[in-house]
Amino acid sequence: MELFNDEYFMRRALQEAELAFAEGEIPVGAVVVSQNRIIARTHNLTETLTDVTAHAEMQAITAAANLLGGKYLNECTLYITLEPCVMCAGALGWSQIGKVVYGASDEKRGFNKFAPAALHPKTEVVFGVLENECAQLMKDFFQQKR
Amino acid sequence: MELFNDEYFMRRALQEAELAFAEGEIPVGAVVVSQNRIIARTHNLTETLTDVTAHAEMQAITAAANLLGGKYLNECTLYITLEPCVMCAGALGWSQIGKVVYGASDEKRGFNKFAPAALHPKTEVVFGVLENECAQLMKDFFQQKR
Repeated sequence: MELFNDEYFMRRALQEAELAFAEGEIPVGAVVVSQNRIIARTHNLTETLTDVTAHAEMQAITAAANLLGGKYLNECTLYITLEPCVMCAGALGWSQIGKVVYGASDEKRGFNKFAPAALHPKTEVVFGVLENECAQLMKDFFQQKR
Repeated sequence: MELFNDEYFMRRALQEAELAFAEGEIPVGAVVVSQNRIIARTHNLTETLTDVTAHAEMQAITAAANLLGGKYLNECTLYITLEPCVMCAGALGWSQIGKVVYGASDEKRGFNKFAPAALHPKTEVVFGVLENECAQLMKDFFQQKR
């Protein structure tokens, strides 16, 4: 049995999303994995930082590159609870990240609708991992906001 | 005669691009203007910071929001020497910026090709201001790199 599979790492991203939720942020969380090791964990901080660029993915890319000492993340996998937006997909494209795994789809703001060619052509994409849990957290957040 | 017109502010963005050039960065510069006042000036720092997200526009959005104390830049204009990429257009979309003015077009990486609906529908777009100067600086940079 594989201990460190996509579901395992997505669960860690979900924990990050729960931290965001508790801080009143739209609950999106991310981890970056290199050689089965988590090298960055981040969550959305747009309200806390008053900065629309502070999505979990953007912080994750910056943190991972800092740790690795290089701009390119081709050996890394990003786990993210929600389908990346156009901005984040563009950033992931520049990073040449090896693999992106996302949980819930984002019909309204996801990159598949608005920028389907944003990622690097070599980037592997997997989606739907813990989809229900990831989507439910978003639903709970917006229901509570009403 | 209008002193503070698009050409005036684009020339200030060009000065930022020249700073990038001198630092060995792809020469792209930006200024953000609010009520005829420059509230942020930035240039590309991807090499210096080892961070693909450190485009001039991304820093400009963060800096302007910090100064204004709010996430939304609907009263602001961004002047940028090169057509924004997918990432930056996505970020500008989230910021709901009032107006974007760019100099040179970017056929290879520009948002018009890859994410034409990335900006907020209310954002006014102007392009081609000091286009030749902006494009020439890029050409000089890549020629020097060969």
